[in-house]
Amino acid sequence: TLQHLFKQIFQASLELQEDDNRKALLVSRKKKAEDTIVDLKGEKIGDGTQRLVAGPCSVESYEQVYEVASAMKEQGLKLLRGGAFKPRTSPYDFQGLGIEGLEILKRVADELDMVVISEVMTPADIEEASEYLDVIQIGARNMQNFDLLREAGGAKKPVLLKRGLSATIDEFIKAAEYILAKGNENVMLCERGIRTFEKATRNTLDISAVPVLKKETHLPVMADVTHSTGRRDLLLPAAKAALAIGADAVMAEVHPDPAVALSDSAQQMDIPQFREFMQSLRDSGLYKL
Amino acid sequence: TLQHLFKQIFQASLELQEDDNRKALLVSRKKKAEDTIVDLKGEKIGDGTQRLVAGPCSVESYEQVYEVASAMKEQGLKLLRGGAFKPRTSPYDFQGLGIEGLEILKRVADELDMVVISEVMTPADIEEASEYLDVIQIGARNMQNFDLLREAGGAKKPVLLKRGLSATIDEFIKAAEYILAKGNENVMLCERGIRTFEKATRNTLDISAVPVLKKETHLPVMADVTHSTGRRDLLLPAAKAALAIGADAVMAEVHPDPAVALSDSAQQMDIPQFREFMQSLRDSGLYKL
Amino acid sequence: TLQHLFKQIFQASLELQEDDNRKALLVSRKKKAEDTIVDLKGEKIGDGTQRLVAGPCSVESYEQVYEVASAMKEQGLKLLRGGAFKPRTSPYDFQGLGIEGLEILKRVADELDMVVISEVMTPADIEEASEYLDVIQIGARNMQNFDLLREAGGAKKPVLLKRGLSATIDEFIKAAEYILAKGNENVMLCERGIRTFEKATRNTLDISAVPVLKKETHLPVMADVTHSTGRRDLLLPAAKAALAIGADAVMAEVHPDPAVALSDSAQQMDIPQFREFMQSLRDSGLYKL
Amino acid sequence: TLQHLFKQIFQASLELQEDDNRKALLVSRKKKAEDTIVDLKGEKIGDGTQRLVAGPCSVESYEQVYEVASAMKEQGLKLLRGGAFKPRTSPYDFQGLGIEGLEILKRVADELDMVVISEVMTPADIEEASEYLDVIQIGARNMQNFDLLREAGGAKKPVLLKRGLSATIDEFIKAAEYILAKGNENVMLCERGIRTFEKATRNTLDISAVPVLKKETHLPVMADVTHSTGRRDLLLPAAKAALAIGADAVMAEVHPDPAVALSDSAQQMDIPQFREFMQSLRDSGLYKL
Repeated sequence: TLQHLFKQIFQASLELQEDDNRKALLVSRKKKAEDTIVDLKGEKIGDGTQRLVAGPCSVESYEQVYEVASAMKEQGLKLLRGGAFKPRTSPYDFQGLGIEGLEILKRVADELDMVVISEVMTPADIEEASEYLDVIQIGARNMQNFDLLREAGGAKKPVLLKRGLSATIDEFIKAAEYILAKGNENVMLCERGIRTFEKATRNTLDISAVPVLKKETHLPVMADVTHSTGRRDLLLPAAKAALAIGADAVMAEVHPDPAVALSDSAQQMDIPQFREFMQSLRDSGLYKL
Repeated sequence: TLQHLFKQIFQASLELQEDDNRKALLVSRKKKAEDTIVDLKGEKIGDGTQRLVAGPCSVESYEQVYEVASAMKEQGLKLLRGGAFKPRTSPYDFQGLGIEGLEILKRVADELDMVVISEVMTPADIEEASEYLDVIQIGARNMQNFDLLREAGGAKKPVLLKRGLSATIDEFIKAAEYILAKGNENVMLCERGIRTFEKATRNTLDISAVPVLKKETHLPVMADVTHSTGRRDLLLPAAKAALAIGADAVMAEVHPDPAVALSDSAQQMDIPQFREFMQSLRDSGLYKL
Repeated sequence: TLQHLFKQIFQASLELQEDDNRKALLVSRKKKAEDTIVDLKGEKIGDGTQRLVAGPCSVESYEQVYEVASAMKEQGLKLLRGGAFKPRTSPYDFQGLGIEGLEILKRVADELDMVVISEVMTPADIEEASEYLDVIQIGARNMQNFDLLREAGGAKKPVLLKRGLSATIDEFIKAAEYILAKGNENVMLCERGIRTFEKATRNTLDISAVPVLKKETHLPVMADVTHSTGRRDLLLPAAKAALAIGADAVMAEVHPDPAVALSDSAQQMDIPQFREFMQSLRDSGLYKL
Repeated sequence: TLQHLFKQIFQASLELQEDDNRKALLVSRKKKAEDTIVDLKGEKIGDGTQRLVAGPCSVESYEQVYEVASAMKEQGLKLLRGGAFKPRTSPYDFQGLGIEGLEILKRVADELDMVVISEVMTPADIEEASEYLDVIQIGARNMQNFDLLREAGGAKKPVLLKRGLSATIDEFIKAAEYILAKGNENVMLCERGIRTFEKATRNTLDISAVPVLKKETHLPVMADVTHSTGRRDLLLPAAKAALAIGADAVMAEVHPDPAVALSDSAQQMDIPQFREFMQSLRDSGLYKL
C-alpha cells in the first residue's frame, strides 16, 4: 500500500506536468482567457454576434455561384463557401473545378463584396489557392493531415478547420494546435457531425461539442448543419439548435437547382428554400442579423 | 437484364407492402397526422408549449425529494422525476429504495400537487408501482425489454420511453409500437444520448433525433440533458438546444447536495444552480413558462 | 502543488478501495484463479476442449428441429440452441412459439441425448422454462435487464449470457456478476458482435473481447459467429478466428431451409452447408472433435 | 402504384449501372478474379503463404533498428517496418527522424537483406522517400488524403494502405481504387482496428474485414495486431485469429526496450517477448514459415 502511494505520488507529478502541458497549448483557454476574434473583411467571427455561412457544395459555374451569392447578399450574408477541390470517396466522382473554381469564387466575391471560404486538400496548393480565397478550409478527412496543418499554420490567411468524422474533441483541439504552433492564430473550429451507428442522418451532429470547444479553447466555433444531418428537412431545426447552444456561425449549403448538383444533391436547399430558412431563423428570434 | 427488371418489379411490390406496413404502424404520422397530446394532471405534453421535467436522480429521503420539489414549484414546474428502482451497472451499487421510494414521491407529489415520473424495470412491478406514479418510465437499458413494453401497453398510465444507448431511431419507434399495439396511446419518447467514441461527454446527445422523431411519429418527444451530457456545465447549453430544436419537454436532474448523492453526483445541479438554470433559460427567450 | 499531492493521496486510497472491489468481484480471476468449467450433461465447457453450439434461429416445428439436431449428432455435436421466445424489433414480426417451442426442443433433446440452450426474456418465465431447457440464455438486449439477471442467479440451471450490442466489456462483466452474486456460478459469456458504423456486416465481431474476458474472468467464453457477422459466407472464417483466439465454444445457426425461415434467413446455413462448415473446420486443424 | 413501378424500373437501370461501375473498379474481384501477388524482394505477398511483418513503431537509432532486424532475421522474417515520419496527435510529441530515419532503415535492410516498409505522409515526400524504402505505407489518418493516394498511384513502389479509423470497408476499397486508377497495381490493404465505444482495447480489430476484403478485391490483405489492440498481451491471440481467418500477413511492433520507446511504449514487444510470440505462433500450427 505504501508502495502504491509512492507510485501515486509519482503519477501525480506526471499529471501536474500534463496539466502544465495543457496550459501550454496555444489554443487553450487556460493559455489565453479572452475569445479569439477572426476578422473576415469586417465580419468579426467570435465577437458574440452569430453569423451564417452559405454557398453551394461544389462550384460548378460562374452563373451558379453568382445566383447563390446574390441570394445571400439579399439576406445580408457575406460569408460564401464553395468547393473547388472536392474530396470524394470514389476517384470516378466529380473532383471539383480546382483553380478554375477558385477563380469563379473570387470573381463573384469581388463583384458582390463577399468573403471566400474554400477547401484546400494538399500542402502544395495552399500558396496558389491563397491568391483567390479569404479562408483556407481544411476538411474533415484532412483534420489529421499534419503536413497540411503545418502549411496552413505558415499561411497568411485564416483557417477553418473541420472536425474529423471520428475525431475526439481532444484530437480536434490538438489538430488546431498544429496550426497555431506554426504562427497562425486565426483559426476557426467547425463541428460537422461524427460517425455513429445511426442511419437516419448522414452523420450525428455532436451539438454538445460546441460548448465543450468554446470552454476548452478561445477559438470561434461553427456548426455545419448540412454535412452533419445530410437532410434538407433537418437544416432549419439543426441551425436553430446550433444558434441556441452558442455556435459563432452556422454553415449550410445552397444550390440553384439541387436536383442536378454535381455533389450532395439531397442535402442542399434551393433559393426559395434558403429564403424560407432565413425567414424562419429570424422569426425564431435566434438569428438576429 | 430483363430478368433483373422482373426481379426489381417483384421487389417493388415487396417495398410497397413494407410501405403499407409502415403506414400501419400505430405510432406513425402516416397513420395519424395530428400530434398526440399526453395530459399529465393538466400539463399537456405535446400541445406546443415546451416544458421542463426535473428531480433527483435517485429518491433518497422524503426531505431530499421535498426540497427539490419545492424549488421546482417555486419555478412553476410540476413534472417531478425521481428514481426508486435504479438500474445500476454493478450489483454492489445503490439499487434504489424501491416501493418505499415511490411512496416518498407520491407523498411529496400529493402535498405539492405534482406529477410523479419514475422508472419501472420489470413487468411484475408495473401494477403495484402504478398505485404511486403518474408516468411509467421505461429506461434506456430496457428499451427492448419487450415483455416490459407489452405490460406497459396494458397499463392505464402514460409511458415515458427512453431511447436505448445504441438503438437506432427505427428500433426506438418500433419499441414504442409495442406499447401502442397493446392499447396504450399515451406514450412519450425521450432522446437521452447515444453511445459513441467521444469521451468528453458521458454519451452523445443526438439532437437531430428530436425533429426526426417528431416527423416520423405523432408522439411527444423529450430530451434528457443530464444523461446525454453527463456534465453539469453542459445542462444549460444542451437545454437551450433542445428547446430550440423543438423538444416538447427537457429533462434535467436536481439534488439538494450532489456531492453526497447516492448516484450520478457529477451531473446533478444543486438548488441554487437550478434557479440560475431556470433564469438563464427564461432570459434566453427559449423557455416561456 | 502540495494540496494537489494530498488530493492525489486521497484519490489513491479511493483507487485502492476500487481495486479491492474488483478483487471482490465473484467473476474476477483475481478472486478465483482457476477456470470455471460448466458441465452440460457431460460436455465440459471451459475445460480446454473447444466445442460447437448449433441449431436453428427460431424453433418452428418438431420436424425442423429434429432434422437440424440429427445433422448435428452425425457430426458429434450435442449442444442444441433454438429460440422459443424471440426478441424482435417489431411487434408484428414472428415472436416465437413460446413454451410450445421449448417442448419441441426438449422432446428432440430427449430423443437424441442433447443439451437444450434457449433464451428466456422475462423473470416470470424462468421457472416454467427451466422444466424444458438445460441452459438459460440471456440475450444481448437483456444483458442489463437486472431483474432477469437476478432471477437467473437464483435458478438451478447454467446461464449463457450474451454481450449487449453496445455494452463495454466492463459492463458485460458486471452483468455476469449479478448472476453470481445470487448464487449461480455456472455462467458462460458470449461475444456476439457490437454495434459500429460498419455496414458490410450486421454487427462487428469484437474478437479481442474473447481473450480479454478470459483474462479478466474465470468464466467460459463463447463467440456467436452468426449474429456478429450476419452473413452466411463469413461463418466459416469467423469460426476459425474464434477457435484460434481461444473461444471455449463457437455458436452458429443451422436451418433445414433458410430461405423460408421465420427469422434471420440470410445468415443461417442449410444442412449441406453445415456439413461443409464442419469439414472445413476439421481440415483447418482448429476444431479437434 | 403503376407510377411507383415505373420509378422502380428507372431505379433498376440506375442500379444496373452502379453494378457496372463496381465491375469496372480496378480493385474488384469482379474485374480480376485471380489474386494479386505483390513481390517484395522475393517475398510474395498474397501467394497463399502467410507472413509476418515486424519492426519498431518509430525509428530511433541505427542500433535500435539493427537489434530488432537481427532478431527478425533469426526468425526468418524479412519484412521490416519502422516509422520515420510519424503522424502524432499533438505537435509537441516526437515527430520521427524523417529522412534520417529512412536512411537508417535502408542501411540495416541493405546489411541484412530485408524489405523496408515505412509511412509517407505528404505527396511531396514520396519521390525522395522512394530512394530509401521498398513499400510506401499510407497510414490510417491519410486513407482519404486523396492527393497522397494519387501520388502513390504514380510511384514505382508497392503501397501498403491502412484502413482509416472510421472508414467503412466500401470507402477503404475506393481509397485503394485511387491508387490503381493512377497505374500502380501493387497495393496491399491493412485492417488496423476501427474506432468504437469499447475502451478495453485501443481500437476494435474488425477481424471479419479480412475475409470481406479478400472477397471483394483481389488485393493482399494484412492485419495490424499492434495498433488495433494497443495491448502487448493481446498481440499473440490476435495474430492467431488473423492467421486463422486468412490474412496474407500479420503486422506487429517490436522494440529493444519498449519502456523507453519514443512512441507507443505500451504495445510493443521486447526481443525475448518477440521470440516467444514467434514460438507460440509456430506451436499453434497457424504460422508455417
